[in-house]
Amino acid sequence: MTTPLLDPDRLLPIAEPARGLARELYARVRDLSLVCPHGHTDPAWFATNEPFSDAAELLLWPDHYLIRMLQSRGVPYEALGIAGTRDRGIPVASPREGWRTFAAHYGLFRGTPSRLWLDHALHEVLGLEKRLSAETADWAYDAINERLTDDAFRPRALYERFGIEVIATTDAATDTLDHHRAIRDSGWGGRVIPTFRPDAVTDPEHEAFQASMSELRRLTGADVARWGDYLEALRQRRAVFADLGATATDHGPPSAMTVDLDEETCQKLLAGALAGALTPEDAALFRAQMLTEMAGMSAQDGLVMQIHAGSWRNHAGAIFEAFGRDKGFDMPLKVDWTGGLHALLERHGFAERLKIILFTLDETTLTREIAPLAGAYPSLLIGPAWWFFDAPEGMRRHRRLVTETAGFYNHAGFNDDTRALLSLPARHDMSRRVECGLLAEMVCEGVLHRDEAEPLAEEMAVGLARRAYNL
Amino acid sequence: MTTPLLDPDRLLPIAEPARGLARELYARVRDLSLVCPHGHTDPAWFATNEPFSDAAELLLWPDHYLIRMLQSRGVPYEALGIAGTRDRGIPVASPREGWRTFAAHYGLFRGTPSRLWLDHALHEVLGLEKRLSAETADWAYDAINERLTDDAFRPRALYERFGIEVIATTDAATDTLDHHRAIRDSGWGGRVIPTFRPDAVTDPEHEAFQASMSELRRLTGADVARWGDYLEALRQRRAVFADLGATATDHGPPSAMTVDLDEETCQKLLAGALAGALTPEDAALFRAQMLTEMAGMSAQDGLVMQIHAGSWRNHAGAIFEAFGRDKGFDMPLKVDWTGGLHALLERHGFAERLKIILFTLDETTLTREIAPLAGAYPSLLIGPAWWFFDAPEGMRRHRRLVTETAGFYNHAGFNDDTRALLSLPARHDMSRRVECGLLAEMVCEGVLHRDEAEPLAEEMAVGLARRAYNL
Amino acid sequence: MTTPLLDPDRLLPIAEPARGLARELYARVRDLSLVCPHGHTDPAWFATNEPFSDAAELLLWPDHYLIRMLQSRGVPYEALGIAGTRDRGIPVASPREGWRTFAAHYGLFRGTPSRLWLDHALHEVLGLEKRLSAETADWAYDAINERLTDDAFRPRALYERFGIEVIATTDAATDTLDHHRAIRDSGWGGRVIPTFRPDAVTDPEHEAFQASMSELRRLTGADVARWGDYLEALRQRRAVFADLGATATDHGPPSAMTVDLDEETCQKLLAGALAGALTPEDAALFRAQMLTEMAGMSAQDGLVMQIHAGSWRNHAGAIFEAFGRDKGFDMPLKVDWTGGLHALLERHGFAERLKIILFTLDETTLTREIAPLAGAYPSLLIGPAWWFFDAPEGMRRHRRLVTETAGFYNHAGFNDDTRALLSLPARHDMSRRVECGLLAEMVCEGVLHRDEAEPLAEEMAVGLARRAYNL
Repeated sequence: MTTPLLDPDRLLPIAEPARGLARELYARVRDLSLVCPHGHTDPAWFATNEPFSDAAELLLWPDHYLIRMLQSRGVPYEALGIAGTRDRGIPVASPREGWRTFAAHYGLFRGTPSRLWLDHALHEVLGLEKRLSAETADWAYDAINERLTDDAFRPRALYERFGIEVIATTDAATDTLDHHRAIRDSGWGGRVIPTFRPDAVTDPEHEAFQASMSELRRLTGADVARWGDYLEALRQRRAVFADLGATATDHGPPSAMTVDLDEETCQKLLAGALAGALTPEDAALFRAQMLTEMAGMSAQDGLVMQIHAGSWRNHAGAIFEAFGRDKGFDMPLKVDWTGGLHALLERHGFAERLKIILFTLDETTLTREIAPLAGAYPSLLIGPAWWFFDAPEGMRRHRRLVTETAGFYNHAGFNDDTRALLSLPARHDMSRRVECGLLAEMVCEGVLHRDEAEPLAEEMAVGLARRAYNL
Repeated sequence: MTTPLLDPDRLLPIAEPARGLARELYARVRDLSLVCPHGHTDPAWFATNEPFSDAAELLLWPDHYLIRMLQSRGVPYEALGIAGTRDRGIPVASPREGWRTFAAHYGLFRGTPSRLWLDHALHEVLGLEKRLSAETADWAYDAINERLTDDAFRPRALYERFGIEVIATTDAATDTLDHHRAIRDSGWGGRVIPTFRPDAVTDPEHEAFQASMSELRRLTGADVARWGDYLEALRQRRAVFADLGATATDHGPPSAMTVDLDEETCQKLLAGALAGALTPEDAALFRAQMLTEMAGMSAQDGLVMQIHAGSWRNHAGAIFEAFGRDKGFDMPLKVDWTGGLHALLERHGFAERLKIILFTLDETTLTREIAPLAGAYPSLLIGPAWWFFDAPEGMRRHRRLVTETAGFYNHAGFNDDTRALLSLPARHDMSRRVECGLLAEMVCEGVLHRDEAEPLAEEMAVGLARRAYNL
Repeated sequence: MTTPLLDPDRLLPIAEPARGLARELYARVRDLSLVCPHGHTDPAWFATNEPFSDAAELLLWPDHYLIRMLQSRGVPYEALGIAGTRDRGIPVASPREGWRTFAAHYGLFRGTPSRLWLDHALHEVLGLEKRLSAETADWAYDAINERLTDDAFRPRALYERFGIEVIATTDAATDTLDHHRAIRDSGWGGRVIPTFRPDAVTDPEHEAFQASMSELRRLTGADVARWGDYLEALRQRRAVFADLGATATDHGPPSAMTVDLDEETCQKLLAGALAGALTPEDAALFRAQMLTEMAGMSAQDGLVMQIHAGSWRNHAGAIFEAFGRDKGFDMPLKVDWTGGLHALLERHGFAERLKIILFTLDETTLTREIAPLAGAYPSLLIGPAWWFFDAPEGMRRHRRLVTETAGFYNHAGFNDDTRALLSLPARHDMSRRVECGLLAEMVCEGVLHRDEAEPLAEEMAVGLARRAYNL
């Protein structure tokens, strides 16, 4: 095999003259800093700067893209070394055995972004010079673990090596943000900021709702059973987040429904929520009202509001019971943005400071709803291709589906949305290659002038994200 | 910059051999006449032939694609020189200032069809030799206004220069059609025909319903409170339109629902509508019945029925209240064609003279519903990519989504659907380039013979539209 | 014209280097045997091995893709020689006249897969050396009928010439399978296996439900009015099918809804069904329960379960009444797989032997539902592009929409789903060309190594189908 491990022109258009032009555009943005306004890395990594210790623990177990694919072809989580909270009679493999199983099934990831992210992490970040396979599994496992003992692979060193400019974590409304405070107080130059994620105190059906409401009362001293005080408690928490650098909030409701109810009705819903006595319809109303409230608060305090709507969390009861959340069994749902957001937009849609970024797993809404809405309302921005669509074809579809209606500048730029630290450069690199390819094609098609493509490539790599998130 | 203002090969396939073949096909259709069976130009232009006077008034203010995009990035309509009916405390700019603001934000339109249409209008139709920008704004404004004083830029001269073969306007059922009559009586050779658009007398929720029903009574002398007489009044108006050259009707319901109710129920609904007492469900039933009635009338009088379904009109109350209809805040909705049209098709689907052209803003229905329906029912034709999708990528998706199921000949051909007279040549040219590109690719892929592509290119440019609309 | 009748590079990527690589990959799979796990050929052909006699009867009349397209442009079925059960006052053409009408309208099929299948059948299988048209209609008709008298065109000879490895038919649960038994007993080496299609005994709204339930009672001796005995009767029939080589079942419900009801409720629904007294909602519940039951049986007996959901059968009453089922007027519907399959998956989703293959006519579900579900649940596989989408663009969309989420190995491979025997090689060839083209593009884009593309091409041609269907 003389094929290089990573094709230097990967993901660029195949044919000339688009390929050559894409290469030039990509060269201008390849080494720009990484702006990471939305993601799920652990602030503890940067606070403590402890080394990572194990390939399976670092690369395999937390990556729900990987473990669900293996499960889909018959490999149970236990065979990867993941112990559930419930014994299902399946032996739990050691980390090394789990890694071997993963490597033996590496072919399953052909054609998926996981493969591209992993190859980049293995060959570019970790410097492995052989392809991962059953044959190289042990060698790779040892080589990676060896690398991880090197100080150059501690979290802060990776932050610097990757050229991260800023990275946002995602944190519960009741998180004490001690790690973020520790980072700030440490004198280290990295910018790691929290994001206010209040789902557990705005969704009465969240498994942690009651505990989180108690914690909210404890942290703020507010009587969270009174509607006005409950909202005030949320405002307080938002201020704490903002004080530690947060510029955004994040909301993950199953639907995009919003309402604008009177205070008496809100008070009744809140009482029902705290009593655990809401019907599913009323719980949905509560969430819908809270999106409108959160938009109102954003219009006041300037935190950018992110709405990630439309996922049926924990679709497989058996997996949730044995392994908990975020284990690859969240399934997309249809979303109605045009009807859903109407109440919120009637109330706050033209508020001057308000920015709302919309993320969807229902691609049909990109042309039918999201681009038309964001191409008219000043408060709305289009979030990048999300989750299952954060991949070359997904990104291309996304860009082609929204741009003719909403242009380039109603877009919030790229974000990596990852908890996999080693994949950060791969994800930004993928986006930059894909976007430069699309721009090159537009120039070759005569729909953009060459001198417009260059600044646009930089906007897509860093500019749009910085502006969308006030970074 | 040596880049030409307009790339002569724009929108053709990038790579050879498809580009060369597309160029040959395009050369055959580039200069064919413009067949414009559906649009929103003002018949008064052609009746009075008065010169246009101002760049902002002509090119900017009536174009909801432009003003909504500017609003989406924070430019209120007043800053463009558009005065609403309600003072929002925002100073209203002069036309020149509005034009400057538009020009300074011209980059917002990168990647959108508006940019391509405008560039064509500015450089090809108006002959400007510099790109529009903040720097050239005043120069362009003056140059355009200067051009407009030239007789060559009066409406009839433009009609002739553009090679228009026929152009249809869109007119309320109660329009007296005086301008069309004046054009006919003027002896001028242009063919400007009306289209019967009865929404204001078939939709009880239309803001002008009551006034329009009174006007319908006045014009026809019919007792429009009696179901049979009401239908007869509509038949009379259709005949008046047909007498002035109309070959089509146009219907813009929010949904595609049709029903086939008994006369007693219809009479009750009509009474409720005139009393302003229908529930939203009954108003929907009234509209649904009226689609079936209109299809029945088309089967008799031969007027081609156009259904443009699925838009939530005036989504932003604040904009509607200050600026009225058609200001860029109409938002697409999901449409159910398969279920919606069933009652109509059971009644009239195989009627010999009936032609119904379907337009959708819900692209998901193209493969799932519209192509299968039009690929079976003899009365149904597929309308071209509409509104947000009347753009290169939108057209390509449309063509690729419908052709494998419904072929080329169940398609109604291109129509420009515009109120922007100067953009007419740009819009037809865009369609011709895109279609020739797709045909060239099919020949290169070996799925069409070269000798089939040439007549198909002409069909798409003019033939299908002529036949679909009986022109 | 020097254009070849069939372009040897048809459907491969247009531009180099992708075209050359695709050609190499295609050369490796072009001549592999045909694996046909799902289709609608008639087992009587292979049992009796009688010659086909007439071009219209063989190629035109049974092909609902062809007749619906002709009807859509105003050619009634009678004009093709198809006699309905009801005289509509339209003269019924002779087979030769029907063929002439078809040939004169052959241009309607430009851009459709029918054209590609037919050209392949006419020029490659039947060896005609002129394009079909009005001018060549009679010549072609005679030439084809002449060929069909040759023993080389009898069913078993075609089976062998086409290199069929196995072909599955689709058979009612109450079919006696006499033809399959005759084939097995004949000593002929062909492998023609049945597929268990129980819709007529699991859907109370099926027109043949009552008759089929009586037949089920007769065949099994079971008291099918008792829930447990009814299920047992179905188990017996499945065993009979399996004994004759069946490896799969097939289910065509209008929706994907499943439920998991208690036995008492099931018994009540069954009683209502047999009494013809179910509401539409209860009939839907019955079907929904039966999908769950069928999955349970598959988990036990290992028959692979195919679910083809989402078609409104017989949308045009007039056609159904005159011509019956399968005449081109079945229309796709929206499908909710994520919600619909939940009950079934909670009950059986991780059962070890269970395989369920999902087919959809609602392409929006590919990224939003089917790929995420199949990319997680071990029991689910993705069926190939189905019906209207079994065409080059449809296949490309399908592959691009599912692979980034579910990879290549959660796919059930190609199946031809046809009743048109002469089109079999064309259909497999089309799929192989399209898949090799996509793989070549992935290699050129650097997302697959060259040495991975070769085995993948074989998987897509034969391997995935063999494994998915346990062949």
